[in-house]
Amino acid sequence: MALELLDHMDTAIDLSDPSSALDLANIRFQLIRLEDTITFHLIERVQFPLNAAIYDPDLLPIPNSNLALPPNLSLADYMLSETERLHSLVRRYDAPDEYPFFPQVLQRPMMAPLRYPKILHENNVNVNSIIKDKYIKEILPEACRDFGRTDRGETKENYGSAATCDIACLQALSRRIHFGKYVAESKFRKETDRFVALIKAEDRTGIDAAITDAKVEQKVLERLRLKAKTYGTDPSTANDGTDTGKINIDAVVKMYAQVVIPLTKVVEVEYLMQRLKGTEWE
Amino acid sequence: MALELLDHMDTAIDLSDPSSALDLANIRFQLIRLEDTITFHLIERVQFPLNAAIYDPDLLPIPNSNLALPPNLSLADYMLSETERLHSLVRRYDAPDEYPFFPQVLQRPMMAPLRYPKILHENNVNVNSIIKDKYIKEILPEACRDFGRTDRGETKENYGSAATCDIACLQALSRRIHFGKYVAESKFRKETDRFVALIKAEDRTGIDAAITDAKVEQKVLERLRLKAKTYGTDPSTANDGTDTGKINIDAVVKMYAQVVIPLTKVVEVEYLMQRLKGTEWE
Repeated sequence: MALELLDHMDTAIDLSDPSSALDLANIRFQLIRLEDTITFHLIERVQFPLNAAIYDPDLLPIPNSNLALPPNLSLADYMLSETERLHSLVRRYDAPDEYPFFPQVLQRPMMAPLRYPKILHENNVNVNSIIKDKYIKEILPEACRDFGRTDRGETKENYGSAATCDIACLQALSRRIHFGKYVAESKFRKETDRFVALIKAEDRTGIDAAITDAKVEQKVLERLRLKAKTYGTDPSTANDGTDTGKINIDAVVKMYAQVVIPLTKVVEVEYLMQRLKGTEWE
Repeated sequence: MALELLDHMDTAIDLSDPSSALDLANIRFQLIRLEDTITFHLIERVQFPLNAAIYDPDLLPIPNSNLALPPNLSLADYMLSETERLHSLVRRYDAPDEYPFFPQVLQRPMMAPLRYPKILHENNVNVNSIIKDKYIKEILPEACRDFGRTDRGETKENYGSAATCDIACLQALSRRIHFGKYVAESKFRKETDRFVALIKAEDRTGIDAAITDAKVEQKVLERLRLKAKTYGTDPSTANDGTDTGKINIDAVVKMYAQVVIPLTKVVEVEYLMQRLKGTEWE
């Protein structure tokens, strides 16, 4: 196991290879690695105050010329949608582990298409609107409390910086949460009969129970706490009493407990509910 | 000192307040904080192979419709310039500590301008083309060696991901290096007579010596090593022998020793060489 893991160390998961993409050890490595990415990006974000105005088109309307979207957008939505438009041109949303927040703005890539093997079953599960909503209303206010200097109130000078960090956070969260599809597919292939029965019975609670491992979840939360503390502390001043840390550690753990883990399970359940369509079991 | 530092902990430096922006303790805090940002972003980048094709428009030409730029760009330049164009619309380059790599693509912001007080002396120092060149030719090949899986060669699937990480790295490096202007201005105000004499004599070597503190530089490199090791290791597996780390620690130290510190001094010297223009000392 250790050797096997070593072999996968610090490489992005290879979604062009079905056996590698559905190997639970590979998926687990990728999920653990994404914890670092998410923690890094959130630490960067909370350098700045919440800056609530960037999420509210009434407070700070951004004129938008993309006809696929409303005429006024929030600054955060404007930047996220324009970034997605740009990234679509270089094939980002051709990758089977990338899900757009604004599918209506995507363009045809200007590079030759890549052929990814079909690993996941056909499905339309995309929980990005829930992710964005919870990020703005739950994750950020908690993470910015006492950090990001809410006492300084809004900092207009950091509106763009905050929105830029948000894009990185949201894209990483989305990737992490939608990776649940690979977890679900892998579990389905291992215990096909059990899942076919649950899916046919439309037993979402039963599916949720079948994919839940409370002990693993507890370990994830403990690991997140350790990562938030480690990455959130400057190691050169860690022991001299002056370092208050770069991030609210509880907020990082809470983000996983209340948003990432539950939404990953929603993705797994909803993916599995579509898993039999067009198959022999339907 | 400790209390004073605590007061500044984890807030972005306030460039709308001249006394705060030229306070060496504030500048120092910001420079140290940017080390974390740079290290985080480089750790994210080396998940992917070097992917040299994205820097070479002959290998991978991207058709570009922006008349201010050549008709074919490298993928990395295309994404960087388009990102800068987008960020300019939300005022990024109005901020006095932000320097574009592609000034020719910037647009007029669509938000009301912010008034920043004039803290720095008028100057046109911008070393971004050197930063980009050294990043591609020196920093990345070193950082991706043994990491980012050069043995896997190119991964076309990660071209866009690598270029996206590059933007974050380059923007952070540029901000860190051009912060030298605030360091230089602060030093100039403290020892005005000394610097006026050196500048009038066009004694760049003398200025370089006057702004160099070898002991501080050594401390910076030691701190970088500690940060690269700490942030580059998953703390949950740090002691079980399976973790090879997420980044080449020597490459991070070398990046500072051979690029960041020397280029910051170039910025300081060139800024000071323009410091007397239009003043009483000219």
